[in-house]
This record gives sequence, C-alpha cells and structure tokens, in this order.
Amino acid sequence: MTASDLAGELKVIAFDVFGTVVDWHGGIRAEVERMLPGVDGSAFALGWRAGYAPAMQAVMARIAAGEGGFTLVDELHLHILDDVLRDFGAQERLDRDGRRELNTAWHRLPAWPDAVQGLARLKARYTICTLSNGNIGLLTEMAKRAGLPWDCILSAEVFKAYKPDPRVYLGAAGVFNVAPTELMLVAAHADDLAAARACGLRTAYVERPLEFGPGRPKDVTPNPDNTFHARDILALARQLGC
Amino acid sequence: MTASDLAGELKVIAFDVFGTVVDWHGGIRAEVERMLPGVDGSAFALGWRAGYAPAMQAVMARIAAGEGGFTLVDELHLHILDDVLRDFGAQERLDRDGRRELNTAWHRLPAWPDAVQGLARLKARYTICTLSNGNIGLLTEMAKRAGLPWDCILSAEVFKAYKPDPRVYLGAAGVFNVAPTELMLVAAHADDLAAARACGLRTAYVERPLEFGPGRPKDVTPNPDNTFHARDILALARQLGC
Repeated sequence: MTASDLAGELKVIAFDVFGTVVDWHGGIRAEVERMLPGVDGSAFALGWRAGYAPAMQAVMARIAAGEGGFTLVDELHLHILDDVLRDFGAQERLDRDGRRELNTAWHRLPAWPDAVQGLARLKARYTICTLSNGNIGLLTEMAKRAGLPWDCILSAEVFKAYKPDPRVYLGAAGVFNVAPTELMLVAAHADDLAAARACGLRTAYVERPLEFGPGRPKDVTPNPDNTFHARDILALARQLGC
Repeated sequence: MTASDLAGELKVIAFDVFGTVVDWHGGIRAEVERMLPGVDGSAFALGWRAGYAPAMQAVMARIAAGEGGFTLVDELHLHILDDVLRDFGAQERLDRDGRRELNTAWHRLPAWPDAVQGLARLKARYTICTLSNGNIGLLTEMAKRAGLPWDCILSAEVFKAYKPDPRVYLGAAGVFNVAPTELMLVAAHADDLAAARACGLRTAYVERPLEFGPGRPKDVTPNPDNTFHARDILALARQLGC
C-alpha cells in the first residue's frame, strides 16, 4: 500500500497528548520556577513525570485485584506532587491550595509550535481526537487554552481503562464505528504505538527529541513497524496530503 | 442574585442537542423525502422521534432489572426505524444499507440558524459542551458537519447512564470539577431542565417553537424556575453579557 492509499483509507486520527501534542517538560518547568523560585524546574518536571508510570501501574494493579476504582490523572498527579515536593525539600513551601494550583499546570501545558496548525490541516480531512490517559476536564481546559482544535476529546475516563489496555484503542474505534485499520494513533512513544498496532490500528510516530528537555535528547530513530514517521504534526499532515 | 451575578458564577454551559441546538424535524424530513419520495417526511420524522421515548424507557428498564447493557442511540434509532418504515408501508423500499444510511441522518441534522454564532460567543467566556443521550460518534460527526464549536463532547455514553438520571448531570459537574451551581444546562425541554435543577444545576430554557415542525407549534411559556429564558442561543448569549 502506498502512503496515498493509506491516507485514503483512514477516517479518524487519535493523538496521544502529553509529549506528543504539548510540551510537558517546558510547561511544568516554567510553572515550578514561577511558584517555587530557586527550585530546579527541569529536574522537578522530570521527577514529577517519572512518578507517573509507577503510580499508574499501582492503580491498574489495584483495579485488576478488584481493590480500587478508576482514578483521574489529576488525582494521580496530586499524589505524586506530594512526593516530589518532599524530594526537593519544598513540602513546606506550598499549602493545599498552592499544590492544587501547581497541579493544574498540567492543564496549562503549551502546544508544540507545529501542533495547532498541523491539527487544523488534518481536521479538514479527518476526524481528530485525543486518546490520552489524562482526564476529560484536564484535556478540555488544555485544548481551550492552547487552541487545540479537537473534534472530540476521548480519554481513558470514557473507557474506564488506561492505555495500553486494548479497551482504549478498540474503544476509540467503536466510538466512531470504524474498523481498527481506519483509525490511526499518533504518538511520540514507542510503547503506546506498539499497543495500538497490536489492536490493528495504523500508527504514526512523531519525533519529539526535546520531550525531556534540552539536557536529555531522546532517541527518535524510525521504526519501520509504524505506518508513518514524521518530524512533527505539520510534517505528518504533509505526508497525508493535507 | 442578578443575571450579572449568575453569569459571573457560571463556569460551564452544557447543552441538550436534539431540538435545542439542531433541527431534527427539518433534517429528518428532508432526508426521508430524498430517500423515500412520496412519503410524508414530516409525519415520518414525528413518528421516528415519537418512538424514541418508549424505546429509551425500555432500555432503562432492562438495565435497572440487570437484564441489559448500555445501548447507543444510533442502535435505538435503527430499531425504531424498522417500525416506522412498516407503519408507512415502506419496509420494502430500503435494504439494510439504505436503512443504515437513513439512520445516520441523525448525524447530519442542521443547526438552528442562531446556534453556531451563539455558541461561539458563549465559548469565548465559558466552557461549552454537549450533554446529550446521543452517542459520542453521532455528536462528533454532527458537530463537524454543522460547525458546532464545542469545547468537549459529553454524552450519556461517558456516564453509562441516560438523562434524566442524576448521574449524567452530576457526572458533567464532576468531569469539570465544578459545583453544580457553576454548571448550567440549556435545553428546549422542560423535563430535562427540571431534572437538572433537581441536581442543583442552573438552567436556561430556549424556545424552539418549531421543534415539531410548522404544523405543531410548541408551548414556549416561560417557567420562572429556570435561571434564564431566551428566544434562542444568541439571545441567551446576550443575556449573559457575551
């Protein structure tokens, strides 16, 4: 199949959000440095993000064991924040309201420079949606502030399951009543894309070499298993003829 | 409280969709007359819509009895269509594909003339979302075609409960982490608004005197229990200072 055939078969393009569409490292660093002057904002952002995977795994393990319910990412972020503040010796510097304010920095993350224009081009031809473990309220506020022109906000919260659970990828296909091959996931993360491919989705990798900040460049080597590999969302739109 | 105080307290405005934002009678009539020449499109549209309430009640009764699961409105509409085609002696005129095509007429309903501009004005100040029993895919395609600028598409499908179940209204407040009084439902239907008020939401009634077509004008007498009463969505935006 040529890229043009594939582009014609697609109906819906779903996007991972954190790191793929928005710059969590830059956004969190800036808000940390504003609210906690003197703290290393980059290290703080990396620590906060590093807490996410184990916290999410713990939630999934509790759900699998029948001991816990679905938890919003806003709540996870707030729990992790307590730990990170302690690691940075800053636990006395933010009260409850301050922690809540800093926690909503995840709602205010800036879009990567190509994202708004790239999404607008893709939207002219495809249905475009989020497919993120972030909760609906978080993703909605982020989109409104950053001008992300989603047709629809889909979240783990809709499916009561988190990526990489197949229910999320197949659930998105079900929402739009399309075959898995008519749905493509765009992400900057190999594990997310691999899980989507296992469900039969098309996949597009976008390079975000500075996802973890300028001090930690990422390996963005192409993987031929992905349907598309693009420098950014605007480049992906061009590959799709948009 | 003055209208201005109320407008300042609000954060999110949720909209009923069928009849409130889009003209189901006009849209269905036009598609029926296109696909089934000679059939009375207005009577067919009224019959199809009349089948909705009992079908939805049957689904809710099955769920309450533990005998059934959540059903998408697309599926309900398709079942009702079979009955309506029979009532109009037209069951032989549409095969399976034809029925599916006519069924998606509900995805292609036209917005009322004031809706797009009114929503755009409200969106500049508030978060605006759908709050409909329609499924997410249906509402997304409708929004894309009609240019409805939702910040977020919320549906009974997210909450796995249908209006007027309190889980839908309170679930919407939960999604955005706001108090019920910071959320307002806009609808052209007294029963939907009454259920929202019972959950503590603000309510706005919009007149849609021709919801059931020119032959069946609706009583649009104001009910003082609603927070706002407006001729249409543009008039509501003006009342809110948008």
